[in-house]
Amino acid sequence: MNFYILTLFPDMVVAVMAESIMARARESKLVNIYPMNIRDFSADKHKKVDDYPYGGGAGMVMFCQPIFDAYQEALRRIGHEAPLVYLTPQGHTFTQQMAHDFLKYDALVLLCGHYEGVDERVIEEIVDFQISIGDYVLTGGELPAMVLVDAIARLVPGVLHNEASAGAESFENGLLEYPQYTRPRVWHGREVPEILLSGHHAKVDEWRLSQSKARTERIRPDLL
Amino acid sequence: MNFYILTLFPDMVVAVMAESIMARARESKLVNIYPMNIRDFSADKHKKVDDYPYGGGAGMVMFCQPIFDAYQEALRRIGHEAPLVYLTPQGHTFTQQMAHDFLKYDALVLLCGHYEGVDERVIEEIVDFQISIGDYVLTGGELPAMVLVDAIARLVPGVLHNEASAGAESFENGLLEYPQYTRPRVWHGREVPEILLSGHHAKVDEWRLSQSKARTERIRPDLL
Repeated sequence: MNFYILTLFPDMVVAVMAESIMARARESKLVNIYPMNIRDFSADKHKKVDDYPYGGGAGMVMFCQPIFDAYQEALRRIGHEAPLVYLTPQGHTFTQQMAHDFLKYDALVLLCGHYEGVDERVIEEIVDFQISIGDYVLTGGELPAMVLVDAIARLVPGVLHNEASAGAESFENGLLEYPQYTRPRVWHGREVPEILLSGHHAKVDEWRLSQSKARTERIRPDLL
Repeated sequence: MNFYILTLFPDMVVAVMAESIMARARESKLVNIYPMNIRDFSADKHKKVDDYPYGGGAGMVMFCQPIFDAYQEALRRIGHEAPLVYLTPQGHTFTQQMAHDFLKYDALVLLCGHYEGVDERVIEEIVDFQISIGDYVLTGGELPAMVLVDAIARLVPGVLHNEASAGAESFENGLLEYPQYTRPRVWHGREVPEILLSGHHAKVDEWRLSQSKARTERIRPDLL
């Protein structure tokens, strides 16, 4: 899976991707991440990428040309069509199901907006998916882009050391995950639930499922 | 606003916070970010922080002691009580309203989970808020923690250059933002909507509101 990330802050993307599972995924060559600096594609002699909004208002708007040209270059490097995903609070809300759906592509181009956003016309012309990671406002699209990369990359077969790991998580079965316990058996007077020490796998599974259901009902009844 | 981030990957946090608005916010001293490596607090001679889950299953679980001690140290540095926020898919979904609500604290401690999660007992004992940034699974809590920091920090008075900027965004009025346009007036045959060139501020505002409503109805009817 190849991710091309169009951004004004490529260093931020590089830094995050150097850590944790993303580092392992990249070492394995199963996932590649290519940040591309939108500013490098500006035809403006001062490498400007934004301008005042028509109609007035606070903030600046990223203009069409550098974004359009950066995407064309990403496609040229990929060698075939690949969808452009624009990270924006105006988009559809990202879900675990979408993460699975994106696995069908071998390359994705992610556009990180900044300032007050991006000129609507370049969105209309080249953007395939507009995605929001949640109902809150961030400084730019970089963190959302990295969230998408992380959520999708860990589903790529071979990236997680333990394939079982991706399956038992929250949302994979429509429920929140059950509580986890590890050593010691008693901590600050709190004991590990007896059932988990019983060795009865079927009963453990049953208990975990009931815990998942109870927790989902309590915290996220909307999921049920 | 001071953020103490308890993590196994402090470099990832440092790197992101060196960029973009977070860099400006930190330079202004209005926002301070202190990553703390949970591993440094492990009483284990090999600085171990995780162990196998009771009851079996894939993956490892972070045990109580280093997390408990890291939080105590964060509180000692802060000098008074401060809530512990655990970033987890099992939490309540983060919203723009929550970002506003957190502004009442002058310090927040954020706990980034990893692996299969954190021993439930330390959550019960010290965690004040369990928060999810959305219905998808990530490798760890670092990206979610940075999402929280970004969403909250930009609301701290003085952080954004233009105070007006935070108000007109998506979700602040329960609607998605209107489309934005900037120069040139015609791009790839696509024209800027005439109304935005009219100079009639009231009509521009009216058009933008109607665009916001139409877009929200189309993409996020659940918000209405």
